[in-house]
Amino acid sequence: MRKIGIVGIGHVGSTVAHLIISQGLADELILVDKNTAKRDSEVLDFRDAASLLPHHVHIASGTPADLADADVVISALGHIDLIEPGGDRFTELRANTPEVQQVGQALHRARFNGVLIVISNPVDVITGIYQQVTGLPANQVFGTGTYLDTARLKRSLGDALNVDPRSIQGYMLGEHGDSQFAAWSTVRVLGQKADELVTNYHLDLDAVANDARVGGFTVFSGKKYTNFAIAHAAVSLAQLVLSDAHNEAIVSHYDARFAGYISTPAIIGRSGVVANFELTLTADEQRALQQSANAIAEKTAAYL
Amino acid sequence: MRKIGIVGIGHVGSTVAHLIISQGLADELILVDKNTAKRDSEVLDFRDAASLLPHHVHIASGTPADLADADVVISALGHIDLIEPGGDRFTELRANTPEVQQVGQALHRARFNGVLIVISNPVDVITGIYQQVTGLPANQVFGTGTYLDTARLKRSLGDALNVDPRSIQGYMLGEHGDSQFAAWSTVRVLGQKADELVTNYHLDLDAVANDARVGGFTVFSGKKYTNFAIAHAAVSLAQLVLSDAHNEAIVSHYDARFAGYISTPAIIGRSGVVANFELTLTADEQRALQQSANAIAEKTAAYL
Amino acid sequence: MRKIGIVGIGHVGSTVAHLIISQGLADELILVDKNTAKRDSEVLDFRDAASLLPHHVHIASGTPADLADADVVISALGHIDLIEPGGDRFTELRANTPEVQQVGQALHRARFNGVLIVISNPVDVITGIYQQVTGLPANQVFGTGTYLDTARLKRSLGDALNVDPRSIQGYMLGEHGDSQFAAWSTVRVLGQKADELVTNYHLDLDAVANDARVGGFTVFSGKKYTNFAIAHAAVSLAQLVLSDAHNEAIVSHYDARFAGYISTPAIIGRSGVVANFELTLTADEQRALQQSANAIAEKTAAYL
Amino acid sequence: MRKIGIVGIGHVGSTVAHLIISQGLADELILVDKNTAKRDSEVLDFRDAASLLPHHVHIASGTPADLADADVVISALGHIDLIEPGGDRFTELRANTPEVQQVGQALHRARFNGVLIVISNPVDVITGIYQQVTGLPANQVFGTGTYLDTARLKRSLGDALNVDPRSIQGYMLGEHGDSQFAAWSTVRVLGQKADELVTNYHLDLDAVANDARVGGFTVFSGKKYTNFAIAHAAVSLAQLVLSDAHNEAIVSHYDARFAGYISTPAIIGRSGVVANFELTLTADEQRALQQSANAIAEKTAAYL
Repeated sequence: MRKIGIVGIGHVGSTVAHLIISQGLADELILVDKNTAKRDSEVLDFRDAASLLPHHVHIASGTPADLADADVVISALGHIDLIEPGGDRFTELRANTPEVQQVGQALHRARFNGVLIVISNPVDVITGIYQQVTGLPANQVFGTGTYLDTARLKRSLGDALNVDPRSIQGYMLGEHGDSQFAAWSTVRVLGQKADELVTNYHLDLDAVANDARVGGFTVFSGKKYTNFAIAHAAVSLAQLVLSDAHNEAIVSHYDARFAGYISTPAIIGRSGVVANFELTLTADEQRALQQSANAIAEKTAAYL
Repeated sequence: MRKIGIVGIGHVGSTVAHLIISQGLADELILVDKNTAKRDSEVLDFRDAASLLPHHVHIASGTPADLADADVVISALGHIDLIEPGGDRFTELRANTPEVQQVGQALHRARFNGVLIVISNPVDVITGIYQQVTGLPANQVFGTGTYLDTARLKRSLGDALNVDPRSIQGYMLGEHGDSQFAAWSTVRVLGQKADELVTNYHLDLDAVANDARVGGFTVFSGKKYTNFAIAHAAVSLAQLVLSDAHNEAIVSHYDARFAGYISTPAIIGRSGVVANFELTLTADEQRALQQSANAIAEKTAAYL
Repeated sequence: MRKIGIVGIGHVGSTVAHLIISQGLADELILVDKNTAKRDSEVLDFRDAASLLPHHVHIASGTPADLADADVVISALGHIDLIEPGGDRFTELRANTPEVQQVGQALHRARFNGVLIVISNPVDVITGIYQQVTGLPANQVFGTGTYLDTARLKRSLGDALNVDPRSIQGYMLGEHGDSQFAAWSTVRVLGQKADELVTNYHLDLDAVANDARVGGFTVFSGKKYTNFAIAHAAVSLAQLVLSDAHNEAIVSHYDARFAGYISTPAIIGRSGVVANFELTLTADEQRALQQSANAIAEKTAAYL
Repeated sequence: MRKIGIVGIGHVGSTVAHLIISQGLADELILVDKNTAKRDSEVLDFRDAASLLPHHVHIASGTPADLADADVVISALGHIDLIEPGGDRFTELRANTPEVQQVGQALHRARFNGVLIVISNPVDVITGIYQQVTGLPANQVFGTGTYLDTARLKRSLGDALNVDPRSIQGYMLGEHGDSQFAAWSTVRVLGQKADELVTNYHLDLDAVANDARVGGFTVFSGKKYTNFAIAHAAVSLAQLVLSDAHNEAIVSHYDARFAGYISTPAIIGRSGVVANFELTLTADEQRALQQSANAIAEKTAAYL
C-alpha cells in the first residue's frame, strides 16, 4: 500500500493532501502539523468527503513518528506570512530552519527511509538541511525547485503563442528564487528554437522569462499565498516516485559541482533521483547557473 | 463544450474550482468574485498548473455576464467570517442576501438558462432567493443542502461500523442546519436496518446523528471554515447535471408542501431536478421534516 | 508498489489489464498466459501506449512464479469457445480445471500470499479449486460471482425506471449461473421497496430478474464472449483489496453453511473478505439460496 | 454535452469506446456498425458496467444519421483480417473504400459538422477519401497517422535509455506505413540530440527506428490485430478536440505541398487542425518526407 505523509498543513499542505485524496494517489495519508486543532479539522473535512469519492483513502492525523514506513513524505511547512510582496523566499529561512530540523530529526529517529520531497522555502537551502538532518542518501531528498517556475514559463509561453503549455519543452534553471533563469537553449515549441520564435512569432524572451520568475509573487499579490500550482508540482513528483517512473523532471537536487542543492533536470524514480544527466548549456547559461548557485550560498549566509 | 461558472472564490469557491480543474470536469471555467485581485490571482495559480495536468481546461476571470451560456453556475459566495463556533448559518443571511440578489439579477440579465447550484448559506433560503431573482424554473435551481450532512452521517456510521462510507445508504433530511435529522428508516448498512444495528452492533444512533449534524462546526473549530467535503458535494452534483445522469441525490429543492426549499432526495439530470419521488418516512420523520421546514421559515423571518 | 498479476490474457484478461493500465491502478502489472506469443503481443501493445498515459505502469510478461510478491492475482483464463448460446458456464469446467490446478500449484510453489480474484468459470467451483490448490486462507480467495449479475440487475432496473444504475441498491444472489436469483427484499430505489415499485411503477419483477440472469448470454449472442462489464467488476474488486477499502460487495466467497463458494455480500479489504455479515432474507429467498448452492454441487458432480 | 460517435465496432472500435466510457470522456456515445448484432452486444456489455463507474455515460446503438450533432466521430472500421504478417496496410484499401464512402455520404447527408478522426487504414488515403466524401473543411478531418508510430518510437527509445517514454520528444513522420521515418533532428531526450545519444549512450538509431516502424506487425504477429495503443492515440486526439486544447500532436492532415494527407505535427483544437507550423527538417528528412508522400500516391494507384 502506498503511504504518504505531509508535514505542514497550511494552504499548501492541505491542497497537496486534497489532490492526493481526490485522485486516489495514496492508500494511506498521514497529516502532520504542530497546530493539531487545524490538522485534525482538515482530516475530518477530508474524511467527510469519503462517500463522494470513487476510491478509498485512509486519512489520519499523526506525528513524524507515524511516517516511519511512508513511501514519500512531503514537507509543506512554512511561514508565508513573513513574506512581503515582491520579497524574497529567504525571509522564511530563519523561521523555517528550526522546524525543519525538528521534523528531520524526528524522521531520522523513526528511521524513515523513503523519499522526502521538499516544498518549504527557501527550497534549495531547506532541502539541503533536511538531507543533512535526516542522514538520508542525497538522492532520496529533493525539492520542487524550479519545477513550478518551469510550469510558469510554459504557461507564459503558451499564452504568447496560443499553444497548450503541455506542448512546450524547456526549463527554468537554478534557484527557486530571483537568480533563476530561462535556459532558452532547452526550449522547443512549434518545432522551433527560441531564436526562431523571436524571428517568426516576435516573442519577447525577456518578458516571458520575467513573467515566469515573478509569477509566484503575481499570484501572491492577490491572495497572500500560492497553493494550487505548487501542489500539482509536488504531487506530480510524488507520483513519479511511487510508480518508479524514471521520468525526466526538474527538481532541486544535490549537485557536487556547487556543493549544494539547485534545480536542473534529473531522472525521478522509486528512490528519488535515480539518474543524472547533463544538459548541453550555452556558455552564458553555464555562467548563469554558477551565479545562481553563488546567490543561494550568499543569501544563505546573509539570512541564516 | 462544458462551461461552468463559479461565483465567490473564497475557500470554498477556489476548492470547487480546483476539483473541477484537476479532474477535467469542464472545458471552460469562469471565476467570478467582487474581489477581482483575489479572483485573478486564483486564476493565475490554476493556469500555472496547466502543463502538469493530463487534460486542458480553459480558465478565466469573468463577471456574471460571462456566464450567459454556462451549463452550470455554482454559487459559493459567503461571509464565513460572520459565523461563530457552534453558531448558526443564518448569521450569514443578512450579508449574503444583497450579494445574491445582485448576482441573481446579473444572471437574469445575461439570460442564463443553465442549472444553478447553491452552496451559499443559509442554503435553503439563499437557494429560494436565487430562484426568485433569476426567474429560472424551480427545478433548475437547487442547493447542496444536506448532501454534505448525509456524507457526514455516512462517515460517522462508517467509523462506528468499520465500513467504507460508500457502503452505507441513508439520509439526513431537512434544513442544512440545526433542525436537520437522520431519517433512520432510510438507513441500510451491512444488510441491516437501524434498529438491527442498535441490537447487533450496539450503535448509538443519537451520537451518530449528532456527529453528522455538528460535523461542520467540528471542522470549523480548527480551521475557521470548511471547504473540502462541501466542494466534493457541489462538484458531484455538477457532474450529475453535466452528464444528465438521472441519479438520486439529496439536494435542497423546492417542495410545494412547504412552499420553500428543503432537502429530500430527488433525481438529478441535465435540467437540474428532473424527477421527484417520495420517501416512505415514518410518522415521526414526517413530523421532523415539517418541523425543519418551520424552523427554516421562522429563522428566515428572524434573521432577515 | 502495487503489483497485480493477470493469468489468462484472452478477451477478458486483456480488458482487465487495459482497465488497470489506463486508470493507473497498479505500479507493476505481470501478464501470464500459456500462449506466450499472444501474451507478449498484448504486453507490447500496452507498452506502445506508455507515452500517451498520464501515469507510469511497469508492464511485463511473466509466469506464475513471477507473481510471488503480487498483491493481487486475477484469474481470467477460460475456454469461452466451449460455451454454446444459452448454454451453461459449467461446460468450461472440465477444460479449465487442469489449467487452474496448474496455475494454483505454481502460485503455491511461489508462496504467493496475496489475494486471488477469480473470474474463470464456472466461477463458484473454480474459486473453490483455487483455494484448495493454493492452500491460501479462504478469505484470500474469492470470485467475481454475481457481482456482475447484480450490475446487470441494476442496469435492467435503471432502464425500467429511468434512473442511473448507481442509484439502485440490491443483489442477485447465489450461483453465477442459472440458479441465481434477485433478492427483492434487498432492493431499494426511488425510496421504494420492490412491491412498491410494482404498484407505483408497474415494474415486472420477473422480467427484470430474468434480464439480469440471461444478460451474459444476450451479450454473448452478438460477440461470442463478454469482457467489458466483467472486467470492471474484477478491477473494482481489486481496487477494494489494494486500498483496504472495507467496502460491501457481493462476491463468491466460502460459506460454511453450504461447504462451498457462493455469492452473498461481504466486506472486502486488504486480505480479501475481511468481514462477513448476514442479510435478513425472506424465507423464500433463503430457500432459493439453498437451492442455488445445491445446484452448484449437483452440476459440479455432473460436469467434472 | 459531449457527443462522440464511433463507426466500426471491431477490436479497435470497441476498445476506443471502452476508453471513452471508462474515463468519462463523453456524455453521449453512439456505436455504429453494419453488424448490428455485434454492435448491440457491445452496447449491452458496456451498459452492464454502468453501476461500477464513477460517472454517467449515455451509450446507445445508432447509424451515421444519429451522428448529425456529434462533436467528434471516430472511424475505426476496417478489414484487419485481410492483412498478412509483415504485409502492407494498403491491402485493406479496396475493401475499406466503399464502406468509407458509404459512411462519409451518410455523415454528409446528416450534415455532420464536427471533427472526424480516422483510424481506418491505409489511414493517409482513407482520411482523404472521408474529407472528399463528407465535404467537410480539410482541417475538420484528420487521421491518427504516425501518432501511434511516434508513441512506438518513444517506447523503443525509452527501453534503450531506461527512461519513461513521456520524457522523450521527437517524431516519426510521413506515411503510417513502410515509408515512414524517424526525424532524428526532432528528437530530444536526457537533454541530448540523436548524435549525442549515439556517442554517449551507444544508441543504434536504425534499430530503434525500425522497431517503431514494424511495431504494429510485431503486435499483430501474436494477436492478429492491434487495438490498445491505437485506441489511446485516437482517444487522446479526441480529447484535444473536445477541450479545444491547442496542443501539438502529429496527425495525418492535408498538406498542400503533397496534395494529400500525410503525418507531420499540427496544433489540434475544437475544429480539428487549428494551426499549422513547419518543422526545421534536415535536407535528408525533407527528401524522406517527399518520398513518403510519393509512396502513398503510388500505392494508392496500385491498390485501388
